[in-house]
Amino acid sequence: MTSRKIPVAILGATGMAGQRYVQLLQDHPYFEIKDLAASERSKDKSYFEAVSGRWLSADAIPDNVRNKKLIGIEEVSEEVRLVFSAVDSDLAREWEPFYARQGKFVVSNASAFRSDPLVPVLIPEINPEHLEVLASQREIKGWKGAIVTKPNCSIQSYLLPLYVLEKSGFEIESLIVSTMQALSGAGFPGLSAMSLTENVVPLIRGEEEKTELEPLKLLGSYVPKSRQIENRKDLVISAHCNRVPVLDGHMACVSVKLKNSDVDLKEIWSCWEKFEAGCSLPLSPKKAIHCHQDEDRPQPRIDRESDSGMAIHVGRLRSCNVFDFRFVGLSHNTLRGAAGGGVLIAEYLQQNNYLD
Amino acid sequence: MTSRKIPVAILGATGMAGQRYVQLLQDHPYFEIKDLAASERSKDKSYFEAVSGRWLSADAIPDNVRNKKLIGIEEVSEEVRLVFSAVDSDLAREWEPFYARQGKFVVSNASAFRSDPLVPVLIPEINPEHLEVLASQREIKGWKGAIVTKPNCSIQSYLLPLYVLEKSGFEIESLIVSTMQALSGAGFPGLSAMSLTENVVPLIRGEEEKTELEPLKLLGSYVPKSRQIENRKDLVISAHCNRVPVLDGHMACVSVKLKNSDVDLKEIWSCWEKFEAGCSLPLSPKKAIHCHQDEDRPQPRIDRESDSGMAIHVGRLRSCNVFDFRFVGLSHNTLRGAAGGGVLIAEYLQQNNYLD
Amino acid sequence: MTSRKIPVAILGATGMAGQRYVQLLQDHPYFEIKDLAASERSKDKSYFEAVSGRWLSADAIPDNVRNKKLIGIEEVSEEVRLVFSAVDSDLAREWEPFYARQGKFVVSNASAFRSDPLVPVLIPEINPEHLEVLASQREIKGWKGAIVTKPNCSIQSYLLPLYVLEKSGFEIESLIVSTMQALSGAGFPGLSAMSLTENVVPLIRGEEEKTELEPLKLLGSYVPKSRQIENRKDLVISAHCNRVPVLDGHMACVSVKLKNSDVDLKEIWSCWEKFEAGCSLPLSPKKAIHCHQDEDRPQPRIDRESDSGMAIHVGRLRSCNVFDFRFVGLSHNTLRGAAGGGVLIAEYLQQNNYLD
Amino acid sequence: MTSRKIPVAILGATGMAGQRYVQLLQDHPYFEIKDLAASERSKDKSYFEAVSGRWLSADAIPDNVRNKKLIGIEEVSEEVRLVFSAVDSDLAREWEPFYARQGKFVVSNASAFRSDPLVPVLIPEINPEHLEVLASQREIKGWKGAIVTKPNCSIQSYLLPLYVLEKSGFEIESLIVSTMQALSGAGFPGLSAMSLTENVVPLIRGEEEKTELEPLKLLGSYVPKSRQIENRKDLVISAHCNRVPVLDGHMACVSVKLKNSDVDLKEIWSCWEKFEAGCSLPLSPKKAIHCHQDEDRPQPRIDRESDSGMAIHVGRLRSCNVFDFRFVGLSHNTLRGAAGGGVLIAEYLQQNNYLD
Repeated sequence: MTSRKIPVAILGATGMAGQRYVQLLQDHPYFEIKDLAASERSKDKSYFEAVSGRWLSADAIPDNVRNKKLIGIEEVSEEVRLVFSAVDSDLAREWEPFYARQGKFVVSNASAFRSDPLVPVLIPEINPEHLEVLASQREIKGWKGAIVTKPNCSIQSYLLPLYVLEKSGFEIESLIVSTMQALSGAGFPGLSAMSLTENVVPLIRGEEEKTELEPLKLLGSYVPKSRQIENRKDLVISAHCNRVPVLDGHMACVSVKLKNSDVDLKEIWSCWEKFEAGCSLPLSPKKAIHCHQDEDRPQPRIDRESDSGMAIHVGRLRSCNVFDFRFVGLSHNTLRGAAGGGVLIAEYLQQNNYLD
Repeated sequence: MTSRKIPVAILGATGMAGQRYVQLLQDHPYFEIKDLAASERSKDKSYFEAVSGRWLSADAIPDNVRNKKLIGIEEVSEEVRLVFSAVDSDLAREWEPFYARQGKFVVSNASAFRSDPLVPVLIPEINPEHLEVLASQREIKGWKGAIVTKPNCSIQSYLLPLYVLEKSGFEIESLIVSTMQALSGAGFPGLSAMSLTENVVPLIRGEEEKTELEPLKLLGSYVPKSRQIENRKDLVISAHCNRVPVLDGHMACVSVKLKNSDVDLKEIWSCWEKFEAGCSLPLSPKKAIHCHQDEDRPQPRIDRESDSGMAIHVGRLRSCNVFDFRFVGLSHNTLRGAAGGGVLIAEYLQQNNYLD
Repeated sequence: MTSRKIPVAILGATGMAGQRYVQLLQDHPYFEIKDLAASERSKDKSYFEAVSGRWLSADAIPDNVRNKKLIGIEEVSEEVRLVFSAVDSDLAREWEPFYARQGKFVVSNASAFRSDPLVPVLIPEINPEHLEVLASQREIKGWKGAIVTKPNCSIQSYLLPLYVLEKSGFEIESLIVSTMQALSGAGFPGLSAMSLTENVVPLIRGEEEKTELEPLKLLGSYVPKSRQIENRKDLVISAHCNRVPVLDGHMACVSVKLKNSDVDLKEIWSCWEKFEAGCSLPLSPKKAIHCHQDEDRPQPRIDRESDSGMAIHVGRLRSCNVFDFRFVGLSHNTLRGAAGGGVLIAEYLQQNNYLD
Repeated sequence: MTSRKIPVAILGATGMAGQRYVQLLQDHPYFEIKDLAASERSKDKSYFEAVSGRWLSADAIPDNVRNKKLIGIEEVSEEVRLVFSAVDSDLAREWEPFYARQGKFVVSNASAFRSDPLVPVLIPEINPEHLEVLASQREIKGWKGAIVTKPNCSIQSYLLPLYVLEKSGFEIESLIVSTMQALSGAGFPGLSAMSLTENVVPLIRGEEEKTELEPLKLLGSYVPKSRQIENRKDLVISAHCNRVPVLDGHMACVSVKLKNSDVDLKEIWSCWEKFEAGCSLPLSPKKAIHCHQDEDRPQPRIDRESDSGMAIHVGRLRSCNVFDFRFVGLSHNTLRGAAGGGVLIAEYLQQNNYLD
């Protein structure tokens, strides 16, 4: 009954996020890969040829795509209902609306439309209700389909834990975050081995801005009156973003100020331990938040892959001399933070009948 | 006229900090190495034998110590006037007072006495006036000599820049600091290569406490009435300390809240650029604060060695959404942050006639 | 029917190889862990406590051992029929005969008895017939059980490919091998991060000797007349062994001289591609030899884990100006090269009724 | 008297080798930088602007070039007598003869003309007499100037030690070499950090061919009759070239077969220890061959910089089961192996009046 699966396309299928999509969609219960689209350079090559020398996984290229011919970015088939967009923002700005206009659902890794108040930035465990904006998105944009985006990878390692606290009544006033982000976040080839060997680079261009803005939208709300998603206003974030010589896994050192400083660390820990996601999707981690008791955890190389790379890891919860508490967060940036986050959105859309 | 130089001893001469002392004291204008003391295991070996397989520098073992016989920690010669202590805190607690009692000056890398209000924690560019406490130290402790300590390596990369601002009239209220610290900070063998390859460890035991406390002492003042150094009271620091796979060079991402939030970034930058240290010592960097205009600097591997590893590097000065401003600091942890910092203290003592 | 599984013990259960055994024996079809033995220091702790801070896998500690109490090395239960020995050679020399005498089968990772002509060094795909020596081993040693060893991890990446060629009629005269071996081969903590970061160490003590000798035994034969395993005589090996900053996966650059230099590279490649192991065991790789066509493969980080870390990888087959041909081999040193190789031996013993 | 120095140009001044030339020619006793030539993209920028974000040294950009305007590759001044060519082979093939024709001396890092029997491949300590070919080079090529090349960086770490042995009467018949080469050998950006972190790549395209051929030319001789350099014929080399995660420093594991196998290791060691180069140039190392007694040396990170990065390091001399002896060699690939090797050639030319 493979024919009953939803045919999907991947734009930017040969890049690092595209490769992860290919892996995650192999044998997927809901979706099957119909089209793999890439740049002109790769067009008409087999997937195998096109990624030769740049396939990054220890697992072999899945059989179902190995010999598939790559198409141009403009050539996605009519029957494709869902498009995973893993291209850069310039291409996204052009092609995502193109396919949304045709009636396709676009789940995007690109930042091109993340600041558009008609386009949700979605983490299914946090703000699925933002999908209500799709009605006005369609009407105002004149699209038959829709665009839904996943947030920047840098915020995934701490936003769910903070959301869980807010849901339990803690009100967060401000955050100071310092990240240590993995090499794979820069794509392939990304950074030179000469730059990052035995070194840290204290700049990731554009990353601090995204890290400071996107959570405000995710924690904001769909406002029926304006028919838009409005950003959370009473929360301020300041971020230092650093690149460290780690292959995968973004860490964040987070200092949190609450509106009401009467904080009990045990209660926070307990909120995290007890949290159960409101949705259960094929790619959902068994446990959304992994709570590490060992004082020296989480660590990227050791913890990133657990629960299929979809878990959020927290540890080192302790009080803060300046704010109220602080902790360390970690998530896998190309799984939970990129392709995995995109597949999760698509699964949510399907499970909730958006793709019908 | 070598004979006119002050004879010194190094306790813990074979360890990582000890090796750096050996290098820095080779051909020193003020000091000459008289005694190298080490653990029982190394005693009576030549220095060359004792560090065989653990000598960490690209430069050869200096000729003046290569064949010197190591002595036990209790055997420092009478003629030695100055003892550099690079042993761990347990040994420091025992042997530093032992030699201070004998009339020797002890310059210590250990944390054993750093919290003692009679013992200065010194950075010569910042708080040389704390040496006034030595009179009461001697009297109360009954020592003929004295103990002076250098602070923890983690705070060196940002404390001088903050001190410079305070001296120019900025009043700092609170700091949130996140460090990325080098492997060499853990000594040798220190961490397993299995632990730190392609990884980050978000814990350095005891380091956050030191990072939060020691600056309060350094920025505190000697109070003639109590005859003690009293900690600065109206400043609060919160630190996240991380170990990253870098050989040398501790970085810090620093977020600063001022009492008066009316801040002009250009003025801050200008304070740093114009700063000239009050003292000019043989090991002083030509320029104490290196101000990096390139947005992706400072970086540990590229910047740590400049100005003989004694400079403090700042960069990425920008405003902060939550506090007033933020920046990145860097310094070489085993030079400026350890042996270099110790030698600088000793040079200051000599230049100001404390060792006479 | 768990009760029908063979109860086994692991000596040295908390070390790196021990941990791998624990993982591989979780849910094993033939074996169940009865005893975990460790040093005095760990005795009476739970396994969880004892490996705390030194558990090296991304997967959690298996539930079946998490709370198991560690026993002393001398306390293995009577009912245990099979002992996996992952202790160092000094302990192996004492305790392996102790348990063999009691009637237990000992499968050993240690080198203590590898040069004993009565003790087989076994790779099940290569020399299972060497198990014939066990009869004389028992008789001469006076043991009711037996000791079987696995070879040094450094030779696993190229010995099976060479054996396959010999079986096909190629006769090997000499080998020059240069290895690049992973950090995990030195155990935990093993090498200091200060030693191996951005560096290569051209010495692994004792490794070249093992690399040059053990293949002669593996490719030797059981001689009924002498009732011993006699080393292959007409083969000479010379090895350079280097430690490189890679976590897992030993590589070898192998140059091969044949007795008859009339060599066809395609034929060699075809032998490797067509090879099918004579035994099919639970932990056997699906394909024993992975033949890489890509010129820049195999690579340790990318290829080591494939086929459960039990495959041997070959690539870069090309002719040699000096000898006859050369190639690159790779295998996972703590899976195929250590615990995996041991489990494979035990599975072979069980499948062939040695453990009855 | 700066005006008396020879004005030189650097082609490819912004690349990795070009940067090293810039550093080595700062305050050079014979040469002063007149022109810095680069690609169209950098032309007319200041050197500072052009290398911004890609300057790889811890030392600052030298003052004498910081604000120098880059010129196009075709614009080298008439007064320049010596051109250091650090461009890739395609450009070298075009522009090196262009300037040689004009009467300039070209010292080249490129491989374009290395196999031309009229062009010497020079290591001043080994084959300065090959410069005799320049007369026929000029005549046959119709050049007023000349081209002299330095060999591939991979062979520098063992060729001088082998040459020294030959000069002492040992005759080498064949070599099997396995190299572990540094990242910087691939230039900047060169390899992706994703490719080489915690990994080894067993292929450097074109490198094995150069490693096997160039020594035959260097150890060959200028034949007056043919007026060419003729390759050594009775020596065969086979090489495995690997890229390892090391920043600088190429290592080689070398196995050597002599024509006369009657070898005394002490005699070999003694030849190396006693070797004194026939030329003494400003950039010559104090000791050309550093002999390491420590069994685990040389190591790239620890030894590469000694003697200004111009020394050749040998260690681990031992007998070989298959050939006669084996050892480990090391040299700094971008100093001795690239720009340093080029400057050394230029110094030799000047000292021997070729540039008059």
